Amino acid sequence: MTAYSALSAHFGRAAALSNALGILQWDSDTMMPKGAVGTRAESMALLRVLAHGMVTDPRIGDWLAEADAQSDLDPWAQANIREIRRIWTVETALPPDLVEASSKAISACEMAWRQARADSDFPSLLPYLAEVLKLQREIGRAKGEKLGLSPYDALLNDYEPGGRSERIDALFEDLAAFLPGFTEEVLAIQARRPVDPALDGPFAIEAQRALGVKMMGVVGYDFQRGRLDVSTHPFCGGADNDVRITTRYDEADFARALMGVMHETGHALYEQGRPQALLGQPVSQARSMSVHESQSLLMEMQACRSPEFLHFAAPHMREAFGGTGAGWEPEALWRRYTKVERGFIRVDADEVTYPAHVILRYRLEKALIGDEMPLSELPSAWNAQMQDLLGVVPPNDRLGCLQDVHWPSGGWGYFPTYTLGAMTAAQVFDAANRAEPDILPGIARGDFTPLVGWLRTHIHSQGSLYQTDDLLTRATGRPLDAGVFKAHLRRRYTSEA
Amino acid sequence: MTAYSALSAHFGRAAALSNALGILQWDSDTMMPKGAVGTRAESMALLRVLAHGMVTDPRIGDWLAEADAQSDLDPWAQANIREIRRIWTVETALPPDLVEASSKAISACEMAWRQARADSDFPSLLPYLAEVLKLQREIGRAKGEKLGLSPYDALLNDYEPGGRSERIDALFEDLAAFLPGFTEEVLAIQARRPVDPALDGPFAIEAQRALGVKMMGVVGYDFQRGRLDVSTHPFCGGADNDVRITTRYDEADFARALMGVMHETGHALYEQGRPQALLGQPVSQARSMSVHESQSLLMEMQACRSPEFLHFAAPHMREAFGGTGAGWEPEALWRRYTKVERGFIRVDADEVTYPAHVILRYRLEKALIGDEMPLSELPSAWNAQMQDLLGVVPPNDRLGCLQDVHWPSGGWGYFPTYTLGAMTAAQVFDAANRAEPDILPGIARGDFTPLVGWLRTHIHSQGSLYQTDDLLTRATGRPLDAGVFKAHLRRRYTSEA
Repeated sequence: MTAYSALSAHFGRAAALSNALGILQWDSDTMMPKGAVGTRAESMALLRVLAHGMVTDPRIGDWLAEADAQSDLDPWAQANIREIRRIWTVETALPPDLVEASSKAISACEMAWRQARADSDFPSLLPYLAEVLKLQREIGRAKGEKLGLSPYDALLNDYEPGGRSERIDALFEDLAAFLPGFTEEVLAIQARRPVDPALDGPFAIEAQRALGVKMMGVVGYDFQRGRLDVSTHPFCGGADNDVRITTRYDEADFARALMGVMHETGHALYEQGRPQALLGQPVSQARSMSVHESQSLLMEMQACRSPEFLHFAAPHMREAFGGTGAGWEPEALWRRYTKVERGFIRVDADEVTYPAHVILRYRLEKALIGDEMPLSELPSAWNAQMQDLLGVVPPNDRLGCLQDVHWPSGGWGYFPTYTLGAMTAAQVFDAANRAEPDILPGIARGDFTPLVGWLRTHIHSQGSLYQTDDLLTRATGRPLDAGVFKAHLRRRYTSEA
Repeated sequence: MTAYSALSAHFGRAAALSNALGILQWDSDTMMPKGAVGTRAESMALLRVLAHGMVTDPRIGDWLAEADAQSDLDPWAQANIREIRRIWTVETALPPDLVEASSKAISACEMAWRQARADSDFPSLLPYLAEVLKLQREIGRAKGEKLGLSPYDALLNDYEPGGRSERIDALFEDLAAFLPGFTEEVLAIQARRPVDPALDGPFAIEAQRALGVKMMGVVGYDFQRGRLDVSTHPFCGGADNDVRITTRYDEADFARALMGVMHETGHALYEQGRPQALLGQPVSQARSMSVHESQSLLMEMQACRSPEFLHFAAPHMREAFGGTGAGWEPEALWRRYTKVERGFIRVDADEVTYPAHVILRYRLEKALIGDEMPLSELPSAWNAQMQDLLGVVPPNDRLGCLQDVHWPSGGWGYFPTYTLGAMTAAQVFDAANRAEPDILPGIARGDFTPLVGWLRTHIHSQGSLYQTDDLLTRATGRPLDAGVFKAHLRRRYTSEA
């Protein structure tokens, strides 16, 4: 057995464990009865310890050194070695007592956050969040030392391998200079629109589900390797060959669940389209969080909020709910699905205002990890940024800096991937349309094969063969910039068609 | 840390793994999409290897030796040590290559069985089943050597610790002498009954489910620590504090799903009632398969096919399905629920004919493991036993020796626990009623607390503190015999009330 085949067998076993964890997490979020919380936490903690033990196995270092000397490896194997080294480097960077301290601080902080958010009481969260932040800084420092990165970039690197804040700063400043004025412009245009008639609800959950399933099928989701269920927070999860998505239904508003389903289906198509022969190997994994988010936002924002999709989907929507009247016309539905509003809550934001929410969080978390501002000033700094970027200030911290679980749960460095994903989605969709002129006409007739075929070839099947910049350059001709995203927003929101 | 606390912590971790496996198995049977079969098999195989590694950890032998010398242990800890030693002895008895060979032979045989059953083609199964049998004999010999038991008793011991075939022979011969004549008598009595009017279906699945949930609640099932779902083969599974049951619905016949739900609820009450403070420790586990089956059959057969239960439940059934007419009277429903018929299929059998199916299998598997008959003679031996015990002969092997998955899947020594369970159920229910005269009146008014309270105290909360004979003697005054079971059958089926 060569060192590479030993590595590959070892990481295949690690994937079997990770797949088990994926299903247990899905079950926790969709099926598990409340009384099982503690028992489940013990099972998952044990599996995580075993998984960590596998990817930090002392033999890995030796296998890697030997595999580097193997001359018989194809590009996929070479990339697999690169990914294995990256995982192994990061996973072995932290002393066990830091991992344990961080895990405990996060558990305590998540609990405190739930109460603090309900009470809109930031001071009650402050000591818990300070502890999480302190430990995240230590984690960033420890990983950064091994990777030659700043603490923030080391944290970012977990979600966005190769991602650097210097680059994100430039991309986000470009957007931040553009968005406030553009938002004003869009709001003015939309204010001059005629008001569309309301759609009469309620919209039965069973009918919403059936419509979602139908549209998942249209797009090409493989129900032999996945399911659609309900959870409080929609997600795409599960395991290899078992890619499960969730949504939540509101009987008063079907629009949200449907676009949520299309969003998660975008994630799921990426997962279902990863290189089948290498499933389980690190190189088969999705390239990064920004590329993952690009696939969900491409499907939801670029494809399914287009006039073409709504032209195709409007009759299905009307039929699903027995709708009548002008509100069900494709144009009216399109206006409904592209309405822009300034709001306080990120997860409710439209594609025009969403980046402002992300840029704000990115700036603040980078400053906090870099120890450039005291945590106690978070609420006022948050509100000042909201004023600058969005022109609105939340009336309380529940609608402000307490709204997201990311920081309490240790997800520092994650936020920028949302907007990197939105920009990537625009750039990829644009390139796809140039290469395959039948993509938009296909969507208009309910045929997603031109689009999904292109994505399969250029993104999904590539797994982690290339670094993000290379993947994007091969797919779109250049690394990420903000240009196409801005052009997309201008075209969709300010060219009065 | 004492040796005992080391053991206890170690087996607590093993339980966390076993709980993970329980949920993954549940998911495989209820939720998993077909395309995930292979991926799931890999995850579960890995977790099983890890679990096996934990309970065969070399330190266990030392800890056991040290713990034996500890003088500070209460009876629960002492019983826990006894159970740990039993598990450890059995799990360390087999050489790894035998485990692997058996696992492979079982996988191949299960696949061959599915086809052979569909084709009613025993010869096509024969070579696969011969291999499984050969390896089961070896497993029985290896375990038997460590336990001082015959190969068959060693296999039986896995499901029924302390169970011995000599004892089962006597109990089953008692029943075998009684049942054929008794069945004749019951059939003659039932043939003289007036024919009850048919119940008009179809019975909507949602209404069946709601009725099942309602009755689970009546009996005291804790939905905070469990769920009800659908699977092809009903079971009770899941994890500690997460005891999930399943059923299957037939729109043409609601009776079956409801009694199936009550059966699995009986299992679930046992699981939910095990000693909470020791969950995860071997001593907290259900005592044996026969005791487990006694709890399901007590609930289904003794309690829920009683006139008292049907008196209470009839209006709920009628209301659930909008039923009208004399068929919905409690007496008519009771006759429906106690109808006896000679049939070929074990899982469809009523409580009078079921033991014949089990005795037949027990005799045959004992002879096969003991190498007292050639496997090729199984079909003819099966049919001869059917003639002797039930007076009917299946027209083909699909309805005969190919009907059960137990032997192809390596479950040799399991069958007798069904009928030991039925006998135990009768003996326990009888003792409970003597001790708590309000049990049957309680059932008649939909109040199961007298019954379940008694079971909690005398069976569920006892876990594996006592050996089966001791548990039964403490609960009912004596070890198991066939007397009460026969008396129950006579009273229910031949005293024309």
